[in-house]
Amino acid sequence: MRKVGLIGYGHVGATVALDIVQGGFADELVIIDKDRKKAEAEVLDLLDALALLPFYVKIYVGEYDDLATADIVLSTLGHIELIKPGGDRFTELKANIPEIKEVSEQLNRINFKGILIATTNPNDVIVNIYSQLLNLPKSQIIGTGTCLDTARMKAQVSRALEIDARSVEGYVLGEHGNSQFTAWSTVRVGGQSFLEIAKEKNLNLKDLEEKARQGGFAVFNTKGYTNVAIAAATVSLMNLVLSDAKNIAICSHYDENFSSYISTPALIGKNGIEALIKLPLTLEEEGKLKNSVVEIQEKINYFS
Amino acid sequence: MRKVGLIGYGHVGATVALDIVQGGFADELVIIDKDRKKAEAEVLDLLDALALLPFYVKIYVGEYDDLATADIVLSTLGHIELIKPGGDRFTELKANIPEIKEVSEQLNRINFKGILIATTNPNDVIVNIYSQLLNLPKSQIIGTGTCLDTARMKAQVSRALEIDARSVEGYVLGEHGNSQFTAWSTVRVGGQSFLEIAKEKNLNLKDLEEKARQGGFAVFNTKGYTNVAIAAATVSLMNLVLSDAKNIAICSHYDENFSSYISTPALIGKNGIEALIKLPLTLEEEGKLKNSVVEIQEKINYFS
Amino acid sequence: MRKVGLIGYGHVGATVALDIVQGGFADELVIIDKDRKKAEAEVLDLLDALALLPFYVKIYVGEYDDLATADIVLSTLGHIELIKPGGDRFTELKANIPEIKEVSEQLNRINFKGILIATTNPNDVIVNIYSQLLNLPKSQIIGTGTCLDTARMKAQVSRALEIDARSVEGYVLGEHGNSQFTAWSTVRVGGQSFLEIAKEKNLNLKDLEEKARQGGFAVFNTKGYTNVAIAAATVSLMNLVLSDAKNIAICSHYDENFSSYISTPALIGKNGIEALIKLPLTLEEEGKLKNSVVEIQEKINYFS
Amino acid sequence: MRKVGLIGYGHVGATVALDIVQGGFADELVIIDKDRKKAEAEVLDLLDALALLPFYVKIYVGEYDDLATADIVLSTLGHIELIKPGGDRFTELKANIPEIKEVSEQLNRINFKGILIATTNPNDVIVNIYSQLLNLPKSQIIGTGTCLDTARMKAQVSRALEIDARSVEGYVLGEHGNSQFTAWSTVRVGGQSFLEIAKEKNLNLKDLEEKARQGGFAVFNTKGYTNVAIAAATVSLMNLVLSDAKNIAICSHYDENFSSYISTPALIGKNGIEALIKLPLTLEEEGKLKNSVVEIQEKINYFS
Repeated sequence: MRKVGLIGYGHVGATVALDIVQGGFADELVIIDKDRKKAEAEVLDLLDALALLPFYVKIYVGEYDDLATADIVLSTLGHIELIKPGGDRFTELKANIPEIKEVSEQLNRINFKGILIATTNPNDVIVNIYSQLLNLPKSQIIGTGTCLDTARMKAQVSRALEIDARSVEGYVLGEHGNSQFTAWSTVRVGGQSFLEIAKEKNLNLKDLEEKARQGGFAVFNTKGYTNVAIAAATVSLMNLVLSDAKNIAICSHYDENFSSYISTPALIGKNGIEALIKLPLTLEEEGKLKNSVVEIQEKINYFS
Repeated sequence: MRKVGLIGYGHVGATVALDIVQGGFADELVIIDKDRKKAEAEVLDLLDALALLPFYVKIYVGEYDDLATADIVLSTLGHIELIKPGGDRFTELKANIPEIKEVSEQLNRINFKGILIATTNPNDVIVNIYSQLLNLPKSQIIGTGTCLDTARMKAQVSRALEIDARSVEGYVLGEHGNSQFTAWSTVRVGGQSFLEIAKEKNLNLKDLEEKARQGGFAVFNTKGYTNVAIAAATVSLMNLVLSDAKNIAICSHYDENFSSYISTPALIGKNGIEALIKLPLTLEEEGKLKNSVVEIQEKINYFS
Repeated sequence: MRKVGLIGYGHVGATVALDIVQGGFADELVIIDKDRKKAEAEVLDLLDALALLPFYVKIYVGEYDDLATADIVLSTLGHIELIKPGGDRFTELKANIPEIKEVSEQLNRINFKGILIATTNPNDVIVNIYSQLLNLPKSQIIGTGTCLDTARMKAQVSRALEIDARSVEGYVLGEHGNSQFTAWSTVRVGGQSFLEIAKEKNLNLKDLEEKARQGGFAVFNTKGYTNVAIAAATVSLMNLVLSDAKNIAICSHYDENFSSYISTPALIGKNGIEALIKLPLTLEEEGKLKNSVVEIQEKINYFS
Repeated sequence: MRKVGLIGYGHVGATVALDIVQGGFADELVIIDKDRKKAEAEVLDLLDALALLPFYVKIYVGEYDDLATADIVLSTLGHIELIKPGGDRFTELKANIPEIKEVSEQLNRINFKGILIATTNPNDVIVNIYSQLLNLPKSQIIGTGTCLDTARMKAQVSRALEIDARSVEGYVLGEHGNSQFTAWSTVRVGGQSFLEIAKEKNLNLKDLEEKARQGGFAVFNTKGYTNVAIAAATVSLMNLVLSDAKNIAICSHYDENFSSYISTPALIGKNGIEALIKLPLTLEEEGKLKNSVVEIQEKINYFS
């Protein structure tokens, strides 16, 4: 049985839950939210759909004690409502920290020994705090990080070339925040270097990178939140853990070379981060990655 | 290629789109909304997810002309914001009618010849209006009707018996509104009549029926809308049409015996409603069904 | 993690494995076959497909010790090659018994505590033998029984009425063998009694029932085995156990009223058979069911 | 509606059909085989499974006239039984040619205008013959080519590194036959060049390449045929066409630079091959690719 806990049932949490139920990606899904009444309304809506769906998933609003045997806990809590249009993910940090503390205390109390995957923002800072508070090895704490930004970069390249986004390989690295960057040297399309394709077709790399970076705000500024792509990123990482896939995926994880959580590709399996991946980067990209570490550490220091 | 148009990109429309994209249930999905900017933000979020999903779906905010070759158009527009907690689906009718008229004019203009499936409320009145305005045979116009309420009844029975909702057969009939009723004589669980099980276990049928009827409001009163189960109902009907399944499912469709749209089981295939199903009912149930027809007709008359 | 063992990698086993891998229905799949070399060739073919499929499944040819932590063991072994066209499933019993004994000894040795689902024929006799040999409660031993015959009956009714087989409810009961029978009183199509539909449309019930009973031989006589539908039946039961669905499904299970394994609907969850279902039958059907018990017991006695 | 024809219902055809039906990847599947009786037995087995599966697919044994409106025709015919263990795919060419001719005549007669995807071997020769016989642009004729060998190479790399095969990028190029080669310069694992990883870990590239090349025979020599991975390759290409994915995938297609069908990556959409992809290769790899063209042409000349 695949048992998943989901803490924080806002737009992202609700979409993650829907993805899980529609895809049959867990057998038991425990929902926890400070607003229990709202969580129960959402769960009712999910339960009302079950007669129409191909998979059975046991879904209920639970207590922390229900998470003691969970394989994975998803931290999808957040305070997106605090972010102003065009704003920064750090606006919501002050509101998120006390909740992260409470989640950690509770998970420690029940002796949770599974994998934590967090979408909560500012993502790298949050997973860093989780790693300090939780009685878990650092390798069992994962942030969605630039998994989402990487998908957005692929979407931009896909649109620029009019090809399937699944034909784009490569990574957006660093902070899930303003200091992130597309490591263009890693981006390939059907085995070709995208840098060469971009030169040939006269594509503006800065523009593409900026669109990926600001992709969330393009959505957020109009609809007030983003949920679909971040939920897909969360579920994709969750599935790799649940199936012990030993897949190389990008996420925010602890890298001892930097003494920090930061997004680079890592090997993901049932134990969380099972190995780091040595990604060949240009000197410039190495510099940007270090800069991103500095940015993350500054924010951690500022809030600690 | 399975081409689907979706008109009205609120909570229901967005969830239907997500279900379609996650399940790979269409090859081309054209989104239309009066608020084009909001629709574009939502579509961006979907496009950002595509690199992470197993299926490719061409998704874009389009024009009515793009729907000329659509197999199915989903009318998911609505004004849920006009409904007060505990309110009635008719509150939003006045706001929906002019939009329905515009949709119909546009679909007639482009000579749309596919199947229209509407979730717009009050559902039976809306599909009736569509059938008067659209240049389509009545059999090509379908409302989700009590497909949703039937799923809710199954959820209630499922909870009462602690069994899988997919093991419950039977129907909620009539209006997708207050005059709907659970035809208990049709409800069976694993081949047993639920009426007998309920007697044995001393279950309160009125209570179960009321919970199914009010299920939407239990969700709506807290979260301000319902989306998951109604989207699942819409997608399930859509899939039956797209695959020409000749499946017997419940939905709101024109029944010449009543000279009205109303929800009873019907045979669904690529031509929409391909046959009516003669459902054996008790005399009392027959009476309730007729009463539901009267309720629907009164509302139609009131607003026409 | 959902861990499944599969013992017997012939046509049925290979198709079950393919279904599991294509659908992502297990996380770890351990294959055991007396012909280890053949099993390894089959597994190679599955592994060669993984790069092209959406789910990761750990698949390998293993030893019995690998099954100690399995949630489910599927007994798909058999000697279909011993059956002559138009023959009887009992022809292969003599060859299957020593293998069943070895499987049981091995599963006892490793202290297997999960659920056993057997497709091995003659199915009801085989699960009865398993229940005598295995250190498992009877409720944890399930045969696919008439789950397959029920699907075949639905296929026949579906064809006769030109409707989707998923719109047919009802059961074929008793022995997965010649004494099985369609309990027509349980068969419903879209809420209507099929007996009435058949009368109206002048359908020949005996003919439909015989086609369902002989459906396997229609396939077997030409292609030498059947695999697709029996694999689908196996996987459907497996999924109910793995997701703890509390679904009412038909399978061969121990019924203390008959002191025998026999196929009637039962409640299926993570503990295997979690409850028996009281199915209302006509007196004639009750008689046929008892006759089927007698047939099964005679075969058990004959071979013990 | 997605309508697919399948010509040749042996091991590969049957597995392709099963994949399609289990995944709901087509709405109508027309089966054609010279041995109509066998095809009908296989289809019966599929139909018997439909009540247990989540998707409806219309499946039937048809005539060529049924293919006039097909989006895709799959040529899965073959004579694997003519190949001796350790043999060569060309052994079966003589038997396949007359059948290819008949298929082409029939498809021309009904004025088939869709996409043809062939698994028939020797694959590159066969699609070349199809392109001469069929009244279709060369871009609408696709061979599975080294799509399968590429998946096998990924499986080998996956096993050598103990990672998910989906984390391996790169291509096996050239002939789907002995002159094929792994273009190691294109192989990347999580953004790293596999050549460097192999050097670091002291892996034997020749051995890995040979295992990929001989992977089919490892399966075939024991089980007498291969079906699972080749079916997955076929279905993956089919899905790209049906969803108009504009995905870059490897397959055998006409390359005017070589005046030959040969496997390199290509852009695949509803029109079949929509663009060629310029893959950067080393001089040695360029040489091997040209050698593969020569090998294919020699076989074409020999048999024409």
